Amino acid sequence: MTSPNPLLEAFKKAPYLLPGNGKRTVEVLKEALEHIEDQEESDVYGSGKIIEEFQIKMANYLGKESSVFFPSGTMAQQIALRIWCDRKRTKKVAYHPLCHLEIHEEDGLKELHHLEPILLADKDRVIELEDVTELNEDIACLLLELPQREIGGQLPEYKTLEEISAYCRKKGIKLHLDGARLYEILPYYQKSAAEICSLFDSVYISFYKGIGGVAGAILAGGEDFVKESKVWKRRHGGDLISLYPYIISADHYFEKRIGRMQEYFEQAKEAAAAFNDCQGVFTIPEMPVSNMFHVYFQEPKEKVESLMAEIAEETGVAMTGYVKEINETQCSYELSIGDQYGRVPKENLEKAFYLLDEKMKNAKVGS
Amino acid sequence: MTSPNPLLEAFKKAPYLLPGNGKRTVEVLKEALEHIEDQEESDVYGSGKIIEEFQIKMANYLGKESSVFFPSGTMAQQIALRIWCDRKRTKKVAYHPLCHLEIHEEDGLKELHHLEPILLADKDRVIELEDVTELNEDIACLLLELPQREIGGQLPEYKTLEEISAYCRKKGIKLHLDGARLYEILPYYQKSAAEICSLFDSVYISFYKGIGGVAGAILAGGEDFVKESKVWKRRHGGDLISLYPYIISADHYFEKRIGRMQEYFEQAKEAAAAFNDCQGVFTIPEMPVSNMFHVYFQEPKEKVESLMAEIAEETGVAMTGYVKEINETQCSYELSIGDQYGRVPKENLEKAFYLLDEKMKNAKVGS
Repeated sequence: MTSPNPLLEAFKKAPYLLPGNGKRTVEVLKEALEHIEDQEESDVYGSGKIIEEFQIKMANYLGKESSVFFPSGTMAQQIALRIWCDRKRTKKVAYHPLCHLEIHEEDGLKELHHLEPILLADKDRVIELEDVTELNEDIACLLLELPQREIGGQLPEYKTLEEISAYCRKKGIKLHLDGARLYEILPYYQKSAAEICSLFDSVYISFYKGIGGVAGAILAGGEDFVKESKVWKRRHGGDLISLYPYIISADHYFEKRIGRMQEYFEQAKEAAAAFNDCQGVFTIPEMPVSNMFHVYFQEPKEKVESLMAEIAEETGVAMTGYVKEINETQCSYELSIGDQYGRVPKENLEKAFYLLDEKMKNAKVGS
Repeated sequence: MTSPNPLLEAFKKAPYLLPGNGKRTVEVLKEALEHIEDQEESDVYGSGKIIEEFQIKMANYLGKESSVFFPSGTMAQQIALRIWCDRKRTKKVAYHPLCHLEIHEEDGLKELHHLEPILLADKDRVIELEDVTELNEDIACLLLELPQREIGGQLPEYKTLEEISAYCRKKGIKLHLDGARLYEILPYYQKSAAEICSLFDSVYISFYKGIGGVAGAILAGGEDFVKESKVWKRRHGGDLISLYPYIISADHYFEKRIGRMQEYFEQAKEAAAAFNDCQGVFTIPEMPVSNMFHVYFQEPKEKVESLMAEIAEETGVAMTGYVKEINETQCSYELSIGDQYGRVPKENLEKAFYLLDEKMKNAKVGS
């Protein structure tokens, strides 16, 4: 078990949190189960009312023919790319250098599926049309992650998406959406999920980011694609006898939060502006396009950890539970807005940002 | 959604059940959560008290250095075999022709890991020492499933296990235990789980068969083996942000039922004897060696379905919710004894078996 960490401890004790939808405790599951009848039957290896109805609901929401519930997006997305590659009899796909499959999955795509990803665009920007048209390789599938999480949740222009989609259709390249945070970008694009998904051949969405469920994912697409993905789901060991704890919580928190994405987006813009007003602090993107952004500090990690812990103790407002070192003089963290931000009293929020500005100024003077 | 099935409907309505631990409803999860504090923290991608403590508990129970919680046995076992193969730089493993990996996993072992299983022994009997010593292939790992589920839950003699284990150690073959029903065989062997596991290099156990949890599995072995398996768990998409719904229920029902395996075993022997006393009915094995066996009927599937539904309606005792056709004149089903058997009033139980005998006699006369 991990050693004590003063910032994390301050975060856990703080009554008010800037990020997220609240602590990931057993209460999250209990709340979702409250209105479910005791006698509601489990799904059984992918069959049964509880899973089939949710899959239909999500397919409709995404405007796709069919969908399948997965325990994880890692599993769902590897499988999507594998299916498109098998159909085209190639091993090549393309995605961003900071794609989840490239940096967070222990190379499952390569080790299990032997696919060969081509990395498109520079690390610090989103994929643009030219990155795709200039690609000199015959790929089966292009994966776009909207928003691009590892660079603070950036988005291409909607027109660019339409152009990429049209180009891929013309060239016989399947377009897959990593929509782990799809709901969160609808307010910025002013589009429905189905409108955005109509540009893509397959789509993955998650239920524990903006939605705040326990875990789980949906993979959606055409009927034959989904049917094939169920075979791979079993091969991966994801066709559990019971997935209902995840399905019930996914459905509950989807209903609870899907209507709040506009609010989170507005709050993210407000919070980013407040950070950008502080000495030695800036955000990427400067103006958020979803509920998330990255906060950068022009001070070393240890300094920022201790001043963040102080702010939490002095105001009750925890801005983060961690910061990540970038180099000896800079650090950053990721902020995703959920339910919690709106619960912070305005006065405490203002005081927290005031103190952040003060403490960053003092840190600069002190250094 | 499936069309109505009279036997299944009768099974669902019946107040008394021969098989299992009760209906797989949401109540199973709710019961497990009852004594868990709302503020208990989730595991997070394989870390945290809730998962780490359970892994230590299960490693101790199995007498292994370390263990890791998996969403499914399908995932755990493919990974175990892959690790042993990678270490020996061969693709060959050996197991029974009716091994779970061979018949229930859509060939995940071959399609994802490109391993080449060699099938040992005839389908209708367990693997014996000679099957292993006569094998003319250099395999990395031998998988033994105890009991062999698809043939009614049969077991080799314990001495045979010891001899196979000694032989494999001598030859540098890793021995893996498919212990999906390990607890259920302890009364017959009169051994502890740790004693049996000491014969094996790696072990998988399940929490939703005899234990009756929601889902989930443990893979146990040496520390380096387990560490490596966590990398593969992530690759497979099994390293979920939260596995606690399965862990909490696994732990709860482990505590609730681990002490009842002797009782289930005795009841299985009693039930098998009662079936074998009925006209045109026999069990495999004739004398159970665990809580399970297969029941065979010398009548066609449709006939047995309707007489089983009648028995359920006339006595309140559902013996099964399905039967499987073997050929035009025979059918069978699998019976695993759990909590439910002991709840059937003796009078109803006797009447059910009396009626089964009568109805099978009449069926014979009528045919």
